[in-house]
Amino acid sequence: MTVDPRLARLSLNQRTTQRWSVAQAVDGCVRAGIPAIGLWREPVAEIGVPAAARLVTDAGLRVSSLCRGGFLTAADDAGRAAALADNRRAIDEAAALSAACLVLVVGGLPPGSRDLRGARQRVADALAELAPYAGERGVRLALEPLHPMYCADRAVLSTLGQALDLAEAFPAEQVGVVVDTFHVWWDPDVWRQIVRAGTRIASFQICDFLTPLPADVLLGRGMMGDGHIDFPPLRRAVQAAGYTGDVEVEIFNAEVWATDPDRVLATMIARYVDLVLTD
Amino acid sequence: MTVDPRLARLSLNQRTTQRWSVAQAVDGCVRAGIPAIGLWREPVAEIGVPAAARLVTDAGLRVSSLCRGGFLTAADDAGRAAALADNRRAIDEAAALSAACLVLVVGGLPPGSRDLRGARQRVADALAELAPYAGERGVRLALEPLHPMYCADRAVLSTLGQALDLAEAFPAEQVGVVVDTFHVWWDPDVWRQIVRAGTRIASFQICDFLTPLPADVLLGRGMMGDGHIDFPPLRRAVQAAGYTGDVEVEIFNAEVWATDPDRVLATMIARYVDLVLTD
Repeated sequence: MTVDPRLARLSLNQRTTQRWSVAQAVDGCVRAGIPAIGLWREPVAEIGVPAAARLVTDAGLRVSSLCRGGFLTAADDAGRAAALADNRRAIDEAAALSAACLVLVVGGLPPGSRDLRGARQRVADALAELAPYAGERGVRLALEPLHPMYCADRAVLSTLGQALDLAEAFPAEQVGVVVDTFHVWWDPDVWRQIVRAGTRIASFQICDFLTPLPADVLLGRGMMGDGHIDFPPLRRAVQAAGYTGDVEVEIFNAEVWATDPDRVLATMIARYVDLVLTD
Repeated sequence: MTVDPRLARLSLNQRTTQRWSVAQAVDGCVRAGIPAIGLWREPVAEIGVPAAARLVTDAGLRVSSLCRGGFLTAADDAGRAAALADNRRAIDEAAALSAACLVLVVGGLPPGSRDLRGARQRVADALAELAPYAGERGVRLALEPLHPMYCADRAVLSTLGQALDLAEAFPAEQVGVVVDTFHVWWDPDVWRQIVRAGTRIASFQICDFLTPLPADVLLGRGMMGDGHIDFPPLRRAVQAAGYTGDVEVEIFNAEVWATDPDRVLATMIARYVDLVLTD
């Protein structure tokens, strides 16, 4: 596979082309000259981890991330044990796939709970159990702060600073952080936190922030250029902090999902070159 | 007007009962035993500032805030001049109404712009022009950080810390900040920033954060108890910081707006006593 040097660090997150199976997404990346892929556990499970690992290896692709573990906020013992068990499985899968990291979306408030502080504490407690397990398997956990609009129902981890406060209790090779433009672009403190993060940055994900937000706010992620984010300063900051990994395009968007995936990849490449790589 | 001592600091923000005119809202507060009201400029303009001032004075109500000035991010000279002129008018109105503060929603990115840093700088520049004007008229400007989901289209001021960074360039009696539970509840740094704010807190607004967010995310504000916010810790923190002003209930919500306003006030009082005042 020949790769345009400009695309040497570009990665397709599988959810961007969610109608594609792992095999189709791998083929699509090869056709488009994209050298890395971010995999999701559900489509991987459809063919099994060994088959998925073979597909990406045979195609010569890097696995920039596995999405995702997390959901660590259950307040009851059974829920907590189930979450830890599932995360250990996810870590094993990430190891088998040689993924650069396992992305963790930490989970929201349990149904009916208003104890945000307690939920955040449970994430820290769970991480203390999972980090050594990940370390032993050579897997890096990547804590993803999500946009504060998801704090109640998806991730009580809301800023890069908060993610670093958590991560810094562990060795950098065990626990890193995700910088996702959609989630952090608004944060006046993000520049300082990216410097602070340094090589804790385990994943750099990009997509645009759209307005008006769609009825399902999870789908407000847009193709670069369709929203409000100025990408080059964030790319440069992450790079200056020491991040040398892939730049993963992750878009949840009904219109993108309705488009022919090969066309999505073509647009994504053009926008990446024009709007992300420019200085 | 006899006021239940538990309601001594309760205020109705007029938008909560948006179908009511100023006269109706004032009467409604008196009927319900609510001693303060947050006015909006548009309904005030319908009867004129002097008439509105007379209504609240005759009823013996305090004006806890006037909503709102701001929208200071225009990048062109004409837009900037128009915004400054409108804000000076709003300051004059706040003075005439003896409002405890003029709430400023600072504005989002101008159409097509991705220059977030520039927009934030223009807010600071405009504030430097408006603060002395407000000071001369005994009006306190109250910078309102809005939830980060509104950063692109409504307010580039996204956290209490950022609001304080701006406010602290001016005397505390000229520029304070708003703490609105809906906008700040998710912020892991809010506790530290409330302490830092101290008597810079010019307004304390409450309502709940609902999920799923409605199609128009501006209307995700709910009646206390209908969402995810734990109110007493925030009320106590604001109080411990030295805030002695009113607690203003501001709800933008289609269902609340469709309900008989007298019933809304009754619910609001019950929830305030049960869910906000409790320790």
